[in-house]
Amino acid sequence: ALDRPATIVGGDLPISSILIVIAMQTEALPLVAKFELVEDDDRSIFPKGVPWIRYHGTYKGLHIDLVLPGKDLVLGVDNVGTVSAALVTYASIQALKPDLIINAGTAGGFRAKGACIKDIYLVSGVSFHDRRIPIPVFDLYGIGARSTFSTPNLVKELGLKVGKLSTGDSLDMSPQDEASILANDATVKDMEGAAVVYVADLFSVPAISVKAVTDIADGEKPTAEEFLQNLIAVTAALDRAVTEVVGFISGKSLSGL
Amino acid sequence: ALDRPATIVGGDLPISSILIVIAMQTEALPLVAKFELVEDDDRSIFPKGVPWIRYHGTYKGLHIDLVLPGKDLVLGVDNVGTVSAALVTYASIQALKPDLIINAGTAGGFRAKGACIKDIYLVSGVSFHDRRIPIPVFDLYGIGARSTFSTPNLVKELGLKVGKLSTGDSLDMSPQDEASILANDATVKDMEGAAVVYVADLFSVPAISVKAVTDIADGEKPTAEEFLQNLIAVTAALDRAVTEVVGFISGKSLSGL
Repeated sequence: ALDRPATIVGGDLPISSILIVIAMQTEALPLVAKFELVEDDDRSIFPKGVPWIRYHGTYKGLHIDLVLPGKDLVLGVDNVGTVSAALVTYASIQALKPDLIINAGTAGGFRAKGACIKDIYLVSGVSFHDRRIPIPVFDLYGIGARSTFSTPNLVKELGLKVGKLSTGDSLDMSPQDEASILANDATVKDMEGAAVVYVADLFSVPAISVKAVTDIADGEKPTAEEFLQNLIAVTAALDRAVTEVVGFISGKSLSGL
Repeated sequence: ALDRPATIVGGDLPISSILIVIAMQTEALPLVAKFELVEDDDRSIFPKGVPWIRYHGTYKGLHIDLVLPGKDLVLGVDNVGTVSAALVTYASIQALKPDLIINAGTAGGFRAKGACIKDIYLVSGVSFHDRRIPIPVFDLYGIGARSTFSTPNLVKELGLKVGKLSTGDSLDMSPQDEASILANDATVKDMEGAAVVYVADLFSVPAISVKAVTDIADGEKPTAEEFLQNLIAVTAALDRAVTEVVGFISGKSLSGL
């Protein structure tokens, strides 16, 4: 009952605008170049003071907005994690009213579920693995399982792997996280996806998530090391996949995905 | 360096508007009654579709907005946790431009740091205990330590206990959470405070946090059971404390707190 599909309005009209939500600058910049997007400087859609960044442009007839939470104003690192992802997604939906949201990013993959480094997953459903609330019903709220928008034609055409995503605010994985991820039946884990889909769902905006595997969560290597080692190469694979996804969407309606 | 105070604009002007952010209806309703606030029904400051709720009114010459993230639209439980708290705080700041934010709520307390059931804490600083990112600088970003707005006169006048707050999205506490909370030097733990203060800090809105202890995190009883057992009684103590805090603020400037 909780794993409900998003309500779709206007499913047969051609998709005209896409909002791409990405957490890290390293993941975003190759796509900004590929789609020839320009940065929204002087007349930002975001309020004064926030570090969030928007790029925009047109690619194959689609209006594309690509947003990222930017860098921490004091520490200078990317504003990764659920809070910033939720905020920038919320502010972008309010300002841009996109037809479709694509959350793209890197992720840890589970070897036990068939994931390998550089695999690209189209996410079939999201949940959280670090929101344990052991009170009836609150427990389900914490897990927050949601289906992403169903895109059977896209999956078939692009030959993407399909799996569930579990989200948490830590890069590493505690034993409790691991147990929750297993219970969530997830193949990939990230730090933003379920928060982006949660906010999209609040406003019934269809959302999909494309995740590229940088590290094996149930492997031997320390996550942080493997993540940093593979980030650049896997980002290139991610960006190729997102470009293909956007190319496939061009000219189609939601119901055609 | 990270533990920086908020920048204060207009510190000598009298405070005219307060935004109170509360996560649970049970915590909020006694204050709504006490301050004689009315619900914002037909012309909401929030976009259509969100479950967030605003009450507003005037108490002792102060304009008061009290917001809560409302109930999950499917599950019917309070939208606790950092994502919803951050979103409703963000949307409220944009719409209301408050002079001061008060985050009020229940919390777990640490006996080892002197906390007892029903104690009321004024929070001196916040951080997160479930955002472990073991990469240099990202680790500090994840912890996200921030000072709340300093209120020495308020603390003295009301005789409140003072301690640090650590925030995470779980009601329970894993060994990793406990180690992080210890490292954060926290006396109380909750599920929203650091997210509210993070958003307030983005817009340089001074924020304080008042937390009432419902359960002993380093005690023998299971947290969920103890939390539910004490929620009503402790909420009454919380609401008395918040009423005193608001009464103290009335007629004062930020620099007078």
